[in-house]
Amino acid sequence: MSQVTRPSARSVTALRTISFTRHYTKHAEGSVLVQFGDTKLICTASIEEKVPGFLKGRGQGWLTAEYGMLPRSTHTRMDREAAKGKQSGRTQEIQRLIGRSLRAAFDLEAFGERTLHLDCDVIQADGGTRTAAISGAMVAAYDAFSKLLEKGVISAIPVKHFVAAISVGVYQGVPVLDLDYLEDSNCDTDMNVVMNEQGHFIEVQGTAEGAAFDRKVLNDLLDLADAGIRDIIAKQKQALEI
Amino acid sequence: MSQVTRPSARSVTALRTISFTRHYTKHAEGSVLVQFGDTKLICTASIEEKVPGFLKGRGQGWLTAEYGMLPRSTHTRMDREAAKGKQSGRTQEIQRLIGRSLRAAFDLEAFGERTLHLDCDVIQADGGTRTAAISGAMVAAYDAFSKLLEKGVISAIPVKHFVAAISVGVYQGVPVLDLDYLEDSNCDTDMNVVMNEQGHFIEVQGTAEGAAFDRKVLNDLLDLADAGIRDIIAKQKQALEI
Amino acid sequence: MSQVTRPSARSVTALRTISFTRHYTKHAEGSVLVQFGDTKLICTASIEEKVPGFLKGRGQGWLTAEYGMLPRSTHTRMDREAAKGKQSGRTQEIQRLIGRSLRAAFDLEAFGERTLHLDCDVIQADGGTRTAAISGAMVAAYDAFSKLLEKGVISAIPVKHFVAAISVGVYQGVPVLDLDYLEDSNCDTDMNVVMNEQGHFIEVQGTAEGAAFDRKVLNDLLDLADAGIRDIIAKQKQALEI
Amino acid sequence: MSQVTRPSARSVTALRTISFTRHYTKHAEGSVLVQFGDTKLICTASIEEKVPGFLKGRGQGWLTAEYGMLPRSTHTRMDREAAKGKQSGRTQEIQRLIGRSLRAAFDLEAFGERTLHLDCDVIQADGGTRTAAISGAMVAAYDAFSKLLEKGVISAIPVKHFVAAISVGVYQGVPVLDLDYLEDSNCDTDMNVVMNEQGHFIEVQGTAEGAAFDRKVLNDLLDLADAGIRDIIAKQKQALEI
Amino acid sequence: MSQVTRPSARSVTALRTISFTRHYTKHAEGSVLVQFGDTKLICTASIEEKVPGFLKGRGQGWLTAEYGMLPRSTHTRMDREAAKGKQSGRTQEIQRLIGRSLRAAFDLEAFGERTLHLDCDVIQADGGTRTAAISGAMVAAYDAFSKLLEKGVISAIPVKHFVAAISVGVYQGVPVLDLDYLEDSNCDTDMNVVMNEQGHFIEVQGTAEGAAFDRKVLNDLLDLADAGIRDIIAKQKQALEI
Amino acid sequence: MSQVTRPSARSVTALRTISFTRHYTKHAEGSVLVQFGDTKLICTASIEEKVPGFLKGRGQGWLTAEYGMLPRSTHTRMDREAAKGKQSGRTQEIQRLIGRSLRAAFDLEAFGERTLHLDCDVIQADGGTRTAAISGAMVAAYDAFSKLLEKGVISAIPVKHFVAAISVGVYQGVPVLDLDYLEDSNCDTDMNVVMNEQGHFIEVQGTAEGAAFDRKVLNDLLDLADAGIRDIIAKQKQALEI
Repeated sequence: MSQVTRPSARSVTALRTISFTRHYTKHAEGSVLVQFGDTKLICTASIEEKVPGFLKGRGQGWLTAEYGMLPRSTHTRMDREAAKGKQSGRTQEIQRLIGRSLRAAFDLEAFGERTLHLDCDVIQADGGTRTAAISGAMVAAYDAFSKLLEKGVISAIPVKHFVAAISVGVYQGVPVLDLDYLEDSNCDTDMNVVMNEQGHFIEVQGTAEGAAFDRKVLNDLLDLADAGIRDIIAKQKQALEI
Repeated sequence: MSQVTRPSARSVTALRTISFTRHYTKHAEGSVLVQFGDTKLICTASIEEKVPGFLKGRGQGWLTAEYGMLPRSTHTRMDREAAKGKQSGRTQEIQRLIGRSLRAAFDLEAFGERTLHLDCDVIQADGGTRTAAISGAMVAAYDAFSKLLEKGVISAIPVKHFVAAISVGVYQGVPVLDLDYLEDSNCDTDMNVVMNEQGHFIEVQGTAEGAAFDRKVLNDLLDLADAGIRDIIAKQKQALEI
Repeated sequence: MSQVTRPSARSVTALRTISFTRHYTKHAEGSVLVQFGDTKLICTASIEEKVPGFLKGRGQGWLTAEYGMLPRSTHTRMDREAAKGKQSGRTQEIQRLIGRSLRAAFDLEAFGERTLHLDCDVIQADGGTRTAAISGAMVAAYDAFSKLLEKGVISAIPVKHFVAAISVGVYQGVPVLDLDYLEDSNCDTDMNVVMNEQGHFIEVQGTAEGAAFDRKVLNDLLDLADAGIRDIIAKQKQALEI
Repeated sequence: MSQVTRPSARSVTALRTISFTRHYTKHAEGSVLVQFGDTKLICTASIEEKVPGFLKGRGQGWLTAEYGMLPRSTHTRMDREAAKGKQSGRTQEIQRLIGRSLRAAFDLEAFGERTLHLDCDVIQADGGTRTAAISGAMVAAYDAFSKLLEKGVISAIPVKHFVAAISVGVYQGVPVLDLDYLEDSNCDTDMNVVMNEQGHFIEVQGTAEGAAFDRKVLNDLLDLADAGIRDIIAKQKQALEI
Repeated sequence: MSQVTRPSARSVTALRTISFTRHYTKHAEGSVLVQFGDTKLICTASIEEKVPGFLKGRGQGWLTAEYGMLPRSTHTRMDREAAKGKQSGRTQEIQRLIGRSLRAAFDLEAFGERTLHLDCDVIQADGGTRTAAISGAMVAAYDAFSKLLEKGVISAIPVKHFVAAISVGVYQGVPVLDLDYLEDSNCDTDMNVVMNEQGHFIEVQGTAEGAAFDRKVLNDLLDLADAGIRDIIAKQKQALEI
Repeated sequence: MSQVTRPSARSVTALRTISFTRHYTKHAEGSVLVQFGDTKLICTASIEEKVPGFLKGRGQGWLTAEYGMLPRSTHTRMDREAAKGKQSGRTQEIQRLIGRSLRAAFDLEAFGERTLHLDCDVIQADGGTRTAAISGAMVAAYDAFSKLLEKGVISAIPVKHFVAAISVGVYQGVPVLDLDYLEDSNCDTDMNVVMNEQGHFIEVQGTAEGAAFDRKVLNDLLDLADAGIRDIIAKQKQALEI
């Protein structure tokens, strides 16, 4: 793989420092501060003892996700979505992605008529908030299910496969892993990849910001993502001590 | 590639009958009825002689897209978004995708301080509405620019590369091209691919609906999409007589 | 009746070419493309197996209507109501009118606890969209009930009287029938009339756009409307082959 | 005209007691309490020293109207529209009607770049609120223009023709004038008529609530309305001492 | 207490002329026109035979309040909240205050599963609308409960203690009672006080508009409010003839 | 002052552990994590180089505040206001209070045509979030102005007086300082007090939750608040090293 000097001075294959701080706030069943370098989110997992109407009486659970950014988590202050009275298309797109990704991680039929609400709130943004959200929500959700297990409400944590996500992109013509804000703002192609611990894809979303990209680049990006996600899943498990 | 009996009785590599009917309505600068089998949309392209505030004074143009479905374009009647007072997350996601895809097709700097509004409205849905929308909007946009050219307002149609889109998916374990509704409802993996006439990617969005998918499947799907998109672009040009 | 040269070159008593294309889309129980000259709408009739809360348990049905315009159905692109987050006063007024008119055509007590949803969407506007909507919705509704009859769910089509509607107005001092956009934009008085096949009024809505109008003019306008509506009802029945 | 015993014990041609109390509140340029029997509204006319964007720089004025009901102006408490976050279709329809009617009364070109805002708020409802609103707004608007005249801002009150409105309907088969709530709830046909002092129509809105109505009934209703409106205009002028 | 010449020419301890006109409109169970000088509101109390979801099945009642201003109740016309599609923060703050104050006046457990809706609508504003609303709503609520008592639905009026409210403020350095608009617009400190007939506080809301205020001023203001509220409660009882 | 055993085991006059962590996030001009025991908020202060329309051209600044809670900052998950599409009355009330309080702390005329946006977001709630928000926003705002001073944009920090806020209440009949959630949920009277460093009041908001309170209790509560606020202001200055 060819080289480039990234603004972050990282090698093209290097992740930022990633950490998961569990039990970050006290009320939620699962609560994690996830950091991907300077990108910081609070991911909470809340168990509600009911399911949406369309699932009532089927004996299975549901999992849903919401995403938000504090108005000054960004370089320039953004308007508060609650004050504007609507969530942007970007916000809705991201929370739908988080929901789909985490529904792939857990067996919804195995935790009864309950809803797991995942809330991913960006405290400080520096690129890659959606992939950090997915990776952090995995840990928060696991913790929430652990609590149900402890209480004897369920007999096993209904995890199918751990999932994590990372962004990759083409910076100055070179595929690089885990874009920070500066790199993201100047890259040609941006791809978010969600994979599980088997190395299979849950979601691949690649967008040509500038020039369209070819199959070779796509493959290089997926190789980078694959390696990065394996590392993140290892860190998730380490944080969870499993 | 292994075989499967599709509900549509098509071979795994076969597109549905695709057609572009130009000048479908009379007011819009570009107006196309696009049909992918039983999926039918009206795509109109409207030229407005101004740009959004953030572009004012820069001498360049803008392109934006909106998407909607008639309430009974679907099997079961959907609520009308105008009556509900908001567009769903899905709608917003799709119109953002159409906008990004078409912005990759045209040179925004080459048509002056104008906005091209693309409206893609589903008259009848049978799977693949977003990819039909992108493919049809390409033709409508081209027609709208042709009108500007005829009037002598621009000196060339500001097209960079034709773009088209298609969906691919894994039906009963087998990668297939151009899913109709019945196939889409029962597939494991659903991928929407937008490419240009050079065979490069504008957008790749793959989602594991059921089981996660591996690299081999991803590659098979992309091969199918590549071939399908080449066919669609040929049909676009044929419709435009270029 | 005095003469005037209409922009449409029609005689003052002439309707535009009117047609009803049934089975226009495939999912709805009734689906009609109605054309009044260059004015084109898709009218669908959808049967839902429940009634609104205020009618529950009374054993009777309900009928309701919605109306919309594609953004570029008009000369200049209009903002999409779903994107603006609300329906205009005009839209609401029209859909209330369509609903009242069609409720007068059918016996709501005779089709069980079902709701008939009428959706009238303007594909191309050239004046008279609301009267075309009413006339087309009549045919779509009839078709939807025919389907219920075929299935043996009801024992007769619950029609009381066919209804149709037409606009009349005073163009350059002369009462004329069935205004197109150019005539409508320049007329002094605009009246929409809804009548049934007995020649009785369901709705009369006359508005002085410029000068107020006297009783003589009102009577002339109603005479024109009466004749026009008889013709339209004949065409509805011809289309329905009854 | 045949007879019937009305709930109100009035003859079929009798108006309710109608009164206009001017200067009802102190801030508005024109402020009138209008009473049609037990129906009571406050109509205020406010002058704003600017026009909407679409009229800027044309040297002419604008007139617009809004309508509301206090939540407990009615038999059963209605939800407050401000709390629900939207005005009903009925409210919008009525305020559009009031606006059109009053724009026919005044010469918009003769009072400079100003907007006259009419606010008609129902304090107590007993049928006929929209026609009372139009009739009361006429007096309030006249008063507001009188104030501009007193100040020397305009040289004459820009009135073209006084306008007033009344409802008529078919109660137990008999056309009657000025329906109160009890009569309105039980009538077959309901018609609102707006006329000017020349006896010409500004607006005719007739609706068959139950059975459709024929030309004879329509004519009887218009005769009743004509006589009633003449009386109301006389009372308006008496109240204004002109 | 030092002296000052108030715009209203009242002594610092003088209330405006206060009156409660009962049975002001005919539909509501309680309906009061309350006047504090030129400030005039209609307060209605409506009984609904059900409680909000969170109280269902507990056998107790609920009381809630809404507040609004007619657009031209003020010096300059305000936008209509129903047309803007949302209630301002000020409106919501006031209606929450009215609700809390009146819930302190009545025993919610003693009138069954019913909701008392209080609607306070400002007809003419001249300062102190929220305190007039609370004082008037007390009388309207009492009347509504009297009606339930008359019907034998309850065995006693569930009043705990009469409540009333008044504003006090520092005008030109001097604490004064019952600010009118002119005084309110020019005062340094504005305090709204709600007390019951025992002289105890239900609510104290003091705000430094300009300079912060000290304990001495706070005490002087509370003394003024205490005396004023005793007078208002006497007037409430006199109006109710109890 | 009589004694009581508080759930928190604190003496009636004891504050919780209070801390201000500056530079908590990296983008905002001022960013503070404020903790009042288990209540934690991020307060950011953002400078925008313009003022709202109503202040344009006057050469003075503006200060405004917004408040939010993360959905799972509370014991039970709350709905996300951005998803519901509106801020609750409580939220609006609190952000209006924060804005008023901080506008009393700074000289708005002394920092040019700039807006200071304060965002107070609750990460973890345990009672007293609004008073913690005011106290933390004071520190964040000071830091933001320090940055303007460093840049030479202003010549002095435009502080008039430091402000801080605390809640007091009557728990089991005894006035206590700084209520946590458990105490707040079970107290009779709840009062929020905002004072400046001179010991003067900016805002006093006392509410009888259960029984009304008398003057003696009011005075005891104010004494407690006075002492608490002096301590908090000392901590603010210590954190700011001034």
